[in-house]
Amino acid sequence: MKFTIEKNIILEGLNDATRALSQKITIPVLNGIKFELTKEGLYLMGSDSELTIKTFIPEKDIKNIDSYGIAIVQSKYILDMIRKMPSNVIDFEVIDNQKIKISTSSNEYMLNCYNYNDYPNIVMDKSKEYITLKASLLKEIINQTSYALSTQEVRPLLTGMNFKVTGNILECIATDSYRLSKKVVNLSTANDNSINIVIPGRSINEIEKIIQDDDNDIEIHVFTNKILFIYKDIMIQSNLLSGSYPQTNHFIPDDFVYMINLSLRDFFDAIDRAALLTQNKEKNIVKIKIQDKEMVITSGAAEIGKTEETLKIDSNKKDKIEISFSSKYMLDALKVIKDDNILLLINSDDKPIFIKSVEDETLTELILPIKTF
Amino acid sequence: MKFTIEKNIILEGLNDATRALSQKITIPVLNGIKFELTKEGLYLMGSDSELTIKTFIPEKDIKNIDSYGIAIVQSKYILDMIRKMPSNVIDFEVIDNQKIKISTSSNEYMLNCYNYNDYPNIVMDKSKEYITLKASLLKEIINQTSYALSTQEVRPLLTGMNFKVTGNILECIATDSYRLSKKVVNLSTANDNSINIVIPGRSINEIEKIIQDDDNDIEIHVFTNKILFIYKDIMIQSNLLSGSYPQTNHFIPDDFVYMINLSLRDFFDAIDRAALLTQNKEKNIVKIKIQDKEMVITSGAAEIGKTEETLKIDSNKKDKIEISFSSKYMLDALKVIKDDNILLLINSDDKPIFIKSVEDETLTELILPIKTF
Repeated sequence: MKFTIEKNIILEGLNDATRALSQKITIPVLNGIKFELTKEGLYLMGSDSELTIKTFIPEKDIKNIDSYGIAIVQSKYILDMIRKMPSNVIDFEVIDNQKIKISTSSNEYMLNCYNYNDYPNIVMDKSKEYITLKASLLKEIINQTSYALSTQEVRPLLTGMNFKVTGNILECIATDSYRLSKKVVNLSTANDNSINIVIPGRSINEIEKIIQDDDNDIEIHVFTNKILFIYKDIMIQSNLLSGSYPQTNHFIPDDFVYMINLSLRDFFDAIDRAALLTQNKEKNIVKIKIQDKEMVITSGAAEIGKTEETLKIDSNKKDKIEISFSSKYMLDALKVIKDDNILLLINSDDKPIFIKSVEDETLTELILPIKTF
Repeated sequence: MKFTIEKNIILEGLNDATRALSQKITIPVLNGIKFELTKEGLYLMGSDSELTIKTFIPEKDIKNIDSYGIAIVQSKYILDMIRKMPSNVIDFEVIDNQKIKISTSSNEYMLNCYNYNDYPNIVMDKSKEYITLKASLLKEIINQTSYALSTQEVRPLLTGMNFKVTGNILECIATDSYRLSKKVVNLSTANDNSINIVIPGRSINEIEKIIQDDDNDIEIHVFTNKILFIYKDIMIQSNLLSGSYPQTNHFIPDDFVYMINLSLRDFFDAIDRAALLTQNKEKNIVKIKIQDKEMVITSGAAEIGKTEETLKIDSNKKDKIEISFSSKYMLDALKVIKDDNILLLINSDDKPIFIKSVEDETLTELILPIKTF
């Protein structure tokens, strides 16, 4: 394999492919990036065996091709190396099937290659039926839900996102059992088969980084134990988490005793100020007291001091209620809402608090209250 | 004590004063900032007993003063609190000598105060004779030398900067015994008494952050066991490290076998590229081979690969020499030179490598080579 390519073109492809690599890899060859140069162009593949990302650079975008071939290139620092090359045009040449020379007229890196026979055979098939979403919508879905994914391995399923399709309705849910975020959107076409799978959180987060906030279509091909996303010249394939994701719909009541209309900015800033005093605590407890048209937000830490702040609110009820919650969870939930006004929906001081955008019906968030005495 | 002040004015003063506080404080009251409101204005003082910073806000910059007084205010998060206040005008009021209320019309923080009788009495006297330096020059001196300070407590003196005055010559030296940076500048007036002290690295670094790159004079008052810097309305006082700083002048020979003229940018980038392969190693060894008008830079890590790069150079000698050094130390030294061209001065492969700016005679840097086999 020997070719010449522009720095930015190879960088873009490598940048996406290396996202699949993981620090936790135990098979050495998976520290490598698979370069495969064919007459169609250059394929770059990275994988940690659970997540695989394959990018493609068409032949027309490659400055010069001397010979085709395959190499599994040691990927540590490869992005920085190419970024720091002193020229915009870079030569790649595999030597004795063991090394790759990455060079310009004044410098060269000689990187180790793995034996390409050791690289696992990763099949990236398409399915007959697939879902199509705009890239910007998938990015929004992930951005608005993934913060609620669990990072604890005790309940592995909760580290993944529940991805459900029934007819033309797509429902995505993330929860760590203390809070939940659910996004429901309409698909342009109805799916014949209903889908109910759990996509690993790491895959979800890497997909979010790769796709742009643009109008390109993403094809989503779902199989029994894997899922394939196709976005422009990039294929992203992830395994699925096995098991039954908990039913969460019964958490969400139809009616609420308190419906409070708030400015997102004012409420966020007030919680943010109250959170300051609790930021070193395990539970960042903030208390709100709602009565008539006023909300009083308080928090404190004995060794530092306390804070109190009053917001004017628009509430449907005059009765007083006091409820405490984690300021961090509330701020996380508020951060993903793209609207000037929100609804805080409360039933009692020991039932979940729901947070909704006034205008956007697609997103439902909840956090559990914390009992204080 | 009760007063009203603009957010930015109190923030600026508090920002500087809190720099003196340390995580390692064992006396609780030193977690506080001393507020002292007199008819002249507001003094804000922070101290960890080794470094003390006192700022002053004149009475004319305070919107309203109701009553004078002293309070030692719990300082944790105080900067963030004030930064996040929802108004530009903030009220401060000490309550029962135990709390301070920091408030606007819609919110309030109530912070704990320490007993002001517990706060140590810190004297910040001036001396009769003092040195004057432009702020920009002191900032440059610190920037160009402090990177070479030791961070190891085994030889405490090397964690400080040697500050020497003889006549009108000021010499500042930092070394961790593997590398050294020395800056020599002329003072506008000669000092009657010669000075040879060691200022703690932490104090040096905080001073650098407080002073601006401006033309204001800094007064430097030196005492037997402390030093006081006065910059605008800010007083910064530090203890000194006791002991005799090692003599370093005999390290610096008068003549060099190899004098190599290099473009700073080209050399820096080439070392930076070579450094990539060694960045996870304890010793980031890079080797240079100089012969005639060429320098070949190589480095490698068995598990990743190797790199080689050639620079055209202007050297006074045709004989070959090979010398190895830490790429990190070389990059640190190159980063502080403000010139397009540098001189690399070498005597042999086991003697220090000197790095000098071609135009600026005030700075001398050296790094020790690393013996490789």
